[in-house]
Amino acid sequence: MAEKRRITLKDIARELGISVSTASRALNSYPGISEETIQMVQEFAKKHNYVPNSIAVNFRKNKTMTIGMVVPEVVHYYFSSIISGALQAANLKGYRLLISQTQEKAEQELHACHGMLAGNVDGLLISISNETSDVSHLQEFLDEGKPVVQFDKYSDQLTTPKVITDDFQSAYRAVKHLIDQGCKKIAHINGLEQVQNSKDRLGGYLKVLSDHNLEQNPEWIPHCQDISEAEGYAYAKQLMESSNPPDAIFCITDLVALGVMNYLRDAKIRVPEEVSVMGFSNWKISEVMQPSLSTVEQHGFLIGQKAMDLLIESLQSTDKASSNKVIEVPSDLIIRKSTLKKG
Amino acid sequence: MAEKRRITLKDIARELGISVSTASRALNSYPGISEETIQMVQEFAKKHNYVPNSIAVNFRKNKTMTIGMVVPEVVHYYFSSIISGALQAANLKGYRLLISQTQEKAEQELHACHGMLAGNVDGLLISISNETSDVSHLQEFLDEGKPVVQFDKYSDQLTTPKVITDDFQSAYRAVKHLIDQGCKKIAHINGLEQVQNSKDRLGGYLKVLSDHNLEQNPEWIPHCQDISEAEGYAYAKQLMESSNPPDAIFCITDLVALGVMNYLRDAKIRVPEEVSVMGFSNWKISEVMQPSLSTVEQHGFLIGQKAMDLLIESLQSTDKASSNKVIEVPSDLIIRKSTLKKG
Repeated sequence: MAEKRRITLKDIARELGISVSTASRALNSYPGISEETIQMVQEFAKKHNYVPNSIAVNFRKNKTMTIGMVVPEVVHYYFSSIISGALQAANLKGYRLLISQTQEKAEQELHACHGMLAGNVDGLLISISNETSDVSHLQEFLDEGKPVVQFDKYSDQLTTPKVITDDFQSAYRAVKHLIDQGCKKIAHINGLEQVQNSKDRLGGYLKVLSDHNLEQNPEWIPHCQDISEAEGYAYAKQLMESSNPPDAIFCITDLVALGVMNYLRDAKIRVPEEVSVMGFSNWKISEVMQPSLSTVEQHGFLIGQKAMDLLIESLQSTDKASSNKVIEVPSDLIIRKSTLKKG
Repeated sequence: MAEKRRITLKDIARELGISVSTASRALNSYPGISEETIQMVQEFAKKHNYVPNSIAVNFRKNKTMTIGMVVPEVVHYYFSSIISGALQAANLKGYRLLISQTQEKAEQELHACHGMLAGNVDGLLISISNETSDVSHLQEFLDEGKPVVQFDKYSDQLTTPKVITDDFQSAYRAVKHLIDQGCKKIAHINGLEQVQNSKDRLGGYLKVLSDHNLEQNPEWIPHCQDISEAEGYAYAKQLMESSNPPDAIFCITDLVALGVMNYLRDAKIRVPEEVSVMGFSNWKISEVMQPSLSTVEQHGFLIGQKAMDLLIESLQSTDKASSNKVIEVPSDLIIRKSTLKKG
């Protein structure tokens, strides 16, 4: 097939009998170019679907108008919501989005970040993998003057803004609701011990128990490795078969809660009459479970928007000093049948 | 913060006392450069984390090693699985992925595609929006010699490879299973009439009914506009309250099937004893429903991989004539409790 050549700035200049430099300045509405010329050039460009050659433009400006975004998993309700929010914020400001995923592996994260550097992104949005401890690959961006914004899972070794769910407060409120419903022996199936959002949820859980003088029992705090349905099932069994079973289980995610609910159904333990179950993340499955699952809505879309807005702000600011502020996007407690003992 | 400058080709040449041209050729292992020089330059570059300035490199090659990918929705199990497969295939070949979403709007699709052109992607992967009928924005890519591969929802006005689920066969097999279980009056809640995958699923449904001399009733084929849970609920009610209610409902997606199941539970109609329900897409919710939902697994990850592989193949081939072949990725029928009347 013959390739129809895209119209260039040179073509515009030749066709209109003006210099390339005048055509370029008219397209960009520079001062000093007559209104008439601006209108003529812009109309001609529009009529012929002129698209600036971004490679050439960016070679001069050394900007690609492209943001890199690295997430642990794309096939994930929460992260895909964050991507969607980031996309919307980027489009509004004329930025494009390169994405990559780490599948929770430090090595894939390193590779993804180097790919973003090679692609010359203007800045980076990242939620680090569960395996990541060394963050020198992120420091490389900062060393090159490329801003980084962390979201969800972050490293505090790095001076960047962070956008997160208020995990501590969210966990506090979720467990407070269980206490208000009369639960006294509340277990928490937590995530990986070294991951910040697991630590914060655990912190909120312990604080509310302590504020209400309720029993704290290390055996009631198992830690998931994979944050999986199977682990939820296994830990629910372990908890309920122990000599001191809980009357409520607060789970690190809805997927873990699904495993818990499946075990309780198999063991014919009634929810919420005998045991209340609370999830975290408000996936679609939480509505579909029977009884429906109380959970925490994290507002991924807002987190993605906020993170992208912050990144673009620092791209456009002349003051390149990176902020270290942590922005907490409030969550909502979603109360459904799995915890409602009282009207 | 002071910006640590990235090491350039010039720095390498100066430090090693060779010309920039020799340094460049050594880095790329050109013939005519001594093994010793190649080794020296490559080791130095590695030690100092040299990253080629892709803007400069690509300005010369007029390639960005970047693929554009446009999907209707990112927050969507099937499309995010396709993105994940495309990402994996792209990474293996050293390509990066720019993404955008249309939210099923033709105007957003146009905007997304022009953004991809401005970003100078080497080629495009796209699943068109439900609203799209004019595809001249896709023809623009082909006219510029940039290959396009369509997946899932496609336009046949465009000469490009297409990678899809074998919707006709999948629907045929799903409905055949209902027939094998003894269902005789099978309804189909279909999607938008003009969308190709809706047409193909409807075709498979009609063919298997005709092959088995079963009743075909236009009132049993309502069309969703939004492919939503609410529509599933409303159409199930309409079907079951009609003078000739079906004994099975085959749904265009699992989300629609969820609405159907919710109606049947509210109306105290037993599944599968009185009505069997079949979904399509194998979302996580299909496992969680009670009874669990029989459905069709579409293998989004494989579709994404295949589409990306095809695109990269045509980028690397010298023969630019675009193929028009349709590649059907086989689906799997997942049989669960919502259709199992017999052992």
